[in-house]
Amino acid sequence: MILIGERINGLWRDIRTAIQNRDPRPIQEWARKQAQAGAHFLDVNTGPAVDEPEKVMGWLVETVQEVVDLPISIDSAKIAAIEAGLKAHKKGQPIINSTTGEPKQMEQIFTLAREYGAAVIGLAMNEKGVPKDANDRVAIALEIVATADAMGIPMSDLYIDPLVLPVSVAQDHGPEVLETIRQVKLLADPAPKTIIGLSNVSQKAKHRKLINRTFLVMAMAHGLDAAIVDVNDQQLLDAVATARILLNQEVYADSYLEIAQRGRA
Amino acid sequence: MILIGERINGLWRDIRTAIQNRDPRPIQEWARKQAQAGAHFLDVNTGPAVDEPEKVMGWLVETVQEVVDLPISIDSAKIAAIEAGLKAHKKGQPIINSTTGEPKQMEQIFTLAREYGAAVIGLAMNEKGVPKDANDRVAIALEIVATADAMGIPMSDLYIDPLVLPVSVAQDHGPEVLETIRQVKLLADPAPKTIIGLSNVSQKAKHRKLINRTFLVMAMAHGLDAAIVDVNDQQLLDAVATARILLNQEVYADSYLEIAQRGRA
Repeated sequence: MILIGERINGLWRDIRTAIQNRDPRPIQEWARKQAQAGAHFLDVNTGPAVDEPEKVMGWLVETVQEVVDLPISIDSAKIAAIEAGLKAHKKGQPIINSTTGEPKQMEQIFTLAREYGAAVIGLAMNEKGVPKDANDRVAIALEIVATADAMGIPMSDLYIDPLVLPVSVAQDHGPEVLETIRQVKLLADPAPKTIIGLSNVSQKAKHRKLINRTFLVMAMAHGLDAAIVDVNDQQLLDAVATARILLNQEVYADSYLEIAQRGRA
Repeated sequence: MILIGERINGLWRDIRTAIQNRDPRPIQEWARKQAQAGAHFLDVNTGPAVDEPEKVMGWLVETVQEVVDLPISIDSAKIAAIEAGLKAHKKGQPIINSTTGEPKQMEQIFTLAREYGAAVIGLAMNEKGVPKDANDRVAIALEIVATADAMGIPMSDLYIDPLVLPVSVAQDHGPEVLETIRQVKLLADPAPKTIIGLSNVSQKAKHRKLINRTFLVMAMAHGLDAAIVDVNDQQLLDAVATARILLNQEVYADSYLEIAQRGRA
């Protein structure tokens, strides 16, 4: 399981304020904290309050990579912001987060990915929105896979995101997301990777952590490869370690949990 | 999810001693305790220490149903013990636990099931043992389904058990069990039910409860209908309630967990 830390996002007040003041401290604190918890990548998003993310993303990426050696998932809907992030990126292979299945956007994003050697997250949605059924999500995923392939993006650099919606408002999407993950792993050989933005499933819910870890375990059992998560949620990471054992992805030892905890530290 | 309480089993010392002394108290205490926790059935097994289970099973079933209104999963490898349990059974529809896919045993068990109107658990194993691959487990399940159907057992009364083995000694079976559950639900229309004996997955493991609830959530996401479990494990039942919400089997409310807890009490 590839774990991507979600916390450097302008949706959170401390990060939003830090971005406004160009104050590196809260950002670097979260970068270190997530790295220490075992994140493999850090997602970086300026948040909805920033009007011109292209003026901030480069600084954000540099600020993070000043203190940790992790590659970044550059998270923006604006192509100029993504390019600013890619230019500033120094350590490892970045991930572009994201493109939809909309043809023009795919062309721009995959061109950038090729230029900078970046991986790409492709969202199972298009100009018409997020389809409800797994089949329609898979159809968009297939277009993304075919386009990436035609544009020379290796399948191992493509992550398909079936788009998790909040259970509190879109409960019927949950099983469709799981089925999408399962089918995407059968789409091509080699298959693209699969990824979800986990915390969205529990938006506005009361028992957020329980809902998060329950859905993540289900998604892993359907073939999930990566997730953008709260890597500082210890019970979530214990659930991941246990799921990996039960899915035979990690060799069982009586102390598998302690081994995983030490491995992350 | 149909929850079957596992605790009245001679594998546990208190139950074994109670059986030896024909002492109803520990048995009835566990019957009440499991009923209060929300069990839908109680599994009753004399355990391996009893040589002639057919002399005890009737008394055990009566003893349990004296104090709770739950139907029993009559759990024995001996046909005479199962028949003794069926004769004593008074409340609701019993489940026969179990037959393998061995033809002679299936014929005997399904005959009994028809005579007593019982449901049946069919194990995905035969005289050669438990196959490793999902495909081989499904092949045996298909024989059980076809035999049950030919002998007039309604599909809604048949539970297929893919056989969960301990992760500590048979780690590669885990994903095969999940895939078996998924495929069994596609075998017939209407499909048979699926069931697992959950606690076996964590036999001799250190983090038993975490392993149990993680595997149960995965199995539910693959279509599991029923499980023999420790119904007094509150975190397990919370995981079940959360999985039901995420699989859209129960309508979401912010207080879904409290609603489920109250519903069980």
